Amino acid sequence: MNDTDAGTDADTDAGGEAAPRRRRSGGRATGERSRLPPQRPWAQPRLRYRPTEAVSADELESIHEASLRILEEIGMDFLDGEARARLAAAGARLEPGSERVRFDRGMVTELIRTAPATFTLHARNPAHDLTIGGDHLAFGAVSSAPYVSDLEGGRRIGNRVDFQNLVRLAQMLETVHFFGGYPVEPVDLHASVRHLDAFYDLLTLADKPLHAYSLGRGRNRDCLEMVRIARGVDDATLDREPSIFTVINSSSPLRLDTPMLHGILEYSSRNQVIVITPFTLAGAMAPVTLAGALAQQNAEALAGVVMTQVVRPGSPVVYGGFTSNVDMQSGAPAFGTPEYMRTAMVGGQLARRYGLPYRSSNVCAANAVDAQAAYESVFSLWGAVMGGVNLLMHGQGWMEGGLHAGFEKMILDADLLQMVSAFLDPIAVDEDTLGLDAIREVGPGGHFFGAAHTQSRYRTAFHKPMLSDWRNFESWQEAGSPEATAKASQVSKELLAAYQPPAIDPAVEEELAAFVERRKTEGGVPTDF
Amino acid sequence: MNDTDAGTDADTDAGGEAAPRRRRSGGRATGERSRLPPQRPWAQPRLRYRPTEAVSADELESIHEASLRILEEIGMDFLDGEARARLAAAGARLEPGSERVRFDRGMVTELIRTAPATFTLHARNPAHDLTIGGDHLAFGAVSSAPYVSDLEGGRRIGNRVDFQNLVRLAQMLETVHFFGGYPVEPVDLHASVRHLDAFYDLLTLADKPLHAYSLGRGRNRDCLEMVRIARGVDDATLDREPSIFTVINSSSPLRLDTPMLHGILEYSSRNQVIVITPFTLAGAMAPVTLAGALAQQNAEALAGVVMTQVVRPGSPVVYGGFTSNVDMQSGAPAFGTPEYMRTAMVGGQLARRYGLPYRSSNVCAANAVDAQAAYESVFSLWGAVMGGVNLLMHGQGWMEGGLHAGFEKMILDADLLQMVSAFLDPIAVDEDTLGLDAIREVGPGGHFFGAAHTQSRYRTAFHKPMLSDWRNFESWQEAGSPEATAKASQVSKELLAAYQPPAIDPAVEEELAAFVERRKTEGGVPTDF
Repeated sequence: MNDTDAGTDADTDAGGEAAPRRRRSGGRATGERSRLPPQRPWAQPRLRYRPTEAVSADELESIHEASLRILEEIGMDFLDGEARARLAAAGARLEPGSERVRFDRGMVTELIRTAPATFTLHARNPAHDLTIGGDHLAFGAVSSAPYVSDLEGGRRIGNRVDFQNLVRLAQMLETVHFFGGYPVEPVDLHASVRHLDAFYDLLTLADKPLHAYSLGRGRNRDCLEMVRIARGVDDATLDREPSIFTVINSSSPLRLDTPMLHGILEYSSRNQVIVITPFTLAGAMAPVTLAGALAQQNAEALAGVVMTQVVRPGSPVVYGGFTSNVDMQSGAPAFGTPEYMRTAMVGGQLARRYGLPYRSSNVCAANAVDAQAAYESVFSLWGAVMGGVNLLMHGQGWMEGGLHAGFEKMILDADLLQMVSAFLDPIAVDEDTLGLDAIREVGPGGHFFGAAHTQSRYRTAFHKPMLSDWRNFESWQEAGSPEATAKASQVSKELLAAYQPPAIDPAVEEELAAFVERRKTEGGVPTDF
Repeated sequence: MNDTDAGTDADTDAGGEAAPRRRRSGGRATGERSRLPPQRPWAQPRLRYRPTEAVSADELESIHEASLRILEEIGMDFLDGEARARLAAAGARLEPGSERVRFDRGMVTELIRTAPATFTLHARNPAHDLTIGGDHLAFGAVSSAPYVSDLEGGRRIGNRVDFQNLVRLAQMLETVHFFGGYPVEPVDLHASVRHLDAFYDLLTLADKPLHAYSLGRGRNRDCLEMVRIARGVDDATLDREPSIFTVINSSSPLRLDTPMLHGILEYSSRNQVIVITPFTLAGAMAPVTLAGALAQQNAEALAGVVMTQVVRPGSPVVYGGFTSNVDMQSGAPAFGTPEYMRTAMVGGQLARRYGLPYRSSNVCAANAVDAQAAYESVFSLWGAVMGGVNLLMHGQGWMEGGLHAGFEKMILDADLLQMVSAFLDPIAVDEDTLGLDAIREVGPGGHFFGAAHTQSRYRTAFHKPMLSDWRNFESWQEAGSPEATAKASQVSKELLAAYQPPAIDPAVEEELAAFVERRKTEGGVPTDF
């Protein structure tokens, strides 16, 4: 964001290995931007540490074996005839008069092999294209919250104004690499045309990769067409270049609903990205034991991956894990717990076993942006990042178990993700950084502030957070004892005030508007699926 | 804490591997205790995951080599004649007319070999003995803060009443395994006798292992004698059984002050525990580059370890790392940063390279128990725990870069450390926990709440936090929208109200009181060292 004084760590070689610096096309003059809070420049961090293995290799095989037995012996319900027919043609066993599908293990292990380990997810601005998989990380903004909240306005139902402001804020935050859906549901837009207006906003207010909801084939098609127009490419290019993704949640336990299957049929056939994500809350939609919840998660995920490869071998698909637990006294879902951390890590082990990119999430159950919101989020990041996540959903702004998107939480999380990114910067170890000459020059009892070794590096030596208040107690108290959430509120306002829309070809904008207009005239999409 | 409904995870085999359950001798009836917030029973967690390596093996060797060159070529100042003489006798090179000591690499690598990889630190209550090293973790309460704070009273200078209440609270918290010093300085006690009254409090209000400050030989001796009385053992037993520890901070860069050296001379000769901890703030007392700061940290730590083994080969010593950075604009120290996380991990790599137990800390720079306090603490725990920490100082209650101890932060951190402990519980993976029968019974589209597999486990299935508020938004709002810090305040009051002193033999208590009285009559210790 800030070109002259960005929070990069000169102590690392991140500048050498990371993607080159890219100015957003709507960039402002340096002087103006330097008054904004410090941000690291846009870049996909790399997973540089060996992922943590929460279960042994043998235990992982036991989970894998159990999930294959689930698919063989119990099977899953696929609530769409075409999907069942295609699976049967590929070797799955149907049960007459039922939606049940069973899979022999050979079919599963054979079919998942064709899924790619890494691929590019294209943005309308090529500078924001993402590599998904391998050691690449990508963070997406909160999505699908029905409510929105900020300090002044409190919690309110989702609406287009807040939706647009969250999109603007996400566009301004360099750690937001993609949109995982609508940051908040603009429920004042009618469901039949909501995707048209929302996609128009997402494609004009921002230029990062997008997610479309699988809520009927019409929506899938409209959103893909709008992305095609925005990218200015033809259908054949789109079929070569994944340019949109959709999250496919199984209805745990063991069911894939009609619109989800239609989403796979539509997008896998067009070589677009499927993110299979069972939502396996242990004790509710999955066994109360973590091993059991993981076996079920894995069965559901593998079945979804198989479906994509049956539709189009080699089409991109991401292995998603979302196993958490419920509070068994109240039934309330819990997030960022020790259970969440460990299952996030095992999810990564499973995804790597199958050579698939891995999706996890930055979650919390807190109602306010307090210490709980922070510790649940950092614990979930600990689980996800050390678990080897590639695609992090709900990276910024997720509150209250996903029920509301928070403006202040957007900033807090963006800061957390900047710190995670800096944590992933390698420590440069060489003659120069080992600094023996500086240590010799300063000597026992001296001070390094004045050393040339320090002076030549101090501007960029360390990561600069947006929120952390490091003033001494007296200065902080004189300033009114501000807490982190108040600072986050201020930063969100500053960023929104500085927002400028990214460049777009007026002809493209016009074509998008015309498409929206035409599809509205046609009545949008059915809402009774 | 709570015997009937403790926050253990039945999903794990922690109960089998961890130390056996021990009731504190001052334990209350189950009915009374069960109204207290849920705590996991006292136990030392085990490091079950492979530690994260933040630098490669080659890079680690470069840091090691650089530190040996520092000790060979630059040397360190040892501000005590006896210490220098003993080092010289062991092969170190002195510089006439100076305090400088240089070490050949062979001497360093040879001498550090005799230090033990693990040892037992004895408490006056044997149920609270600790294993230090290997895969064992031990958490200590905040220490040495000059100020203390709680929500009602605000921030105030340290005093004996708050000191005693923090000791009581730490005794009640099952995650507090030891005291790393005075949680807050009782500055209303005169410095000449403070250690006598404070140790009397620590030994009668609590029964966990203790730290003595190295502020002159007299204090070291008094504290060791009080621990001997409290344990009811003779000097020979004490010489076999490490029963007290002292943190030895080098005055970075490259200096060991007189009282620190006296602490080593006193305690290593008695086979007590030395925790060598250079405080190497990059950019101030160490090079601005992390590699340089680590090389210097390592040189200072190795020099301290060498000193202990010269005094008594085989005496217990812990490798401590405390490398963080300063805000180069203001000079303010920063904690829980990405720099801190990575250097904590490299510190662990170095300690393991030398086969020594590793000390790190749970730190934050926040002035209030807000989101910043939480994220800086969890980030530092991420660095320490994944770095393979054995002895975690300032585990509970550290605020404001160590300038104040916070009652609410004690509870927040205790909860964080319970979550870390639960995160370290293994996931049980076996036929029973994989739960195929339950998945078959529930089937696609069903619910697991009612399954027998769930019902037989739901009470103990998941970790129960003390603070996390998982109520739905409406219930939470009706309750006054409480934030985590308010809940922490309430929990600290409940625990203090329920406090009962641990059992102690009245004859021992009398002997301790008589010792304090006699030493006071003698004038305590000099304060002009």
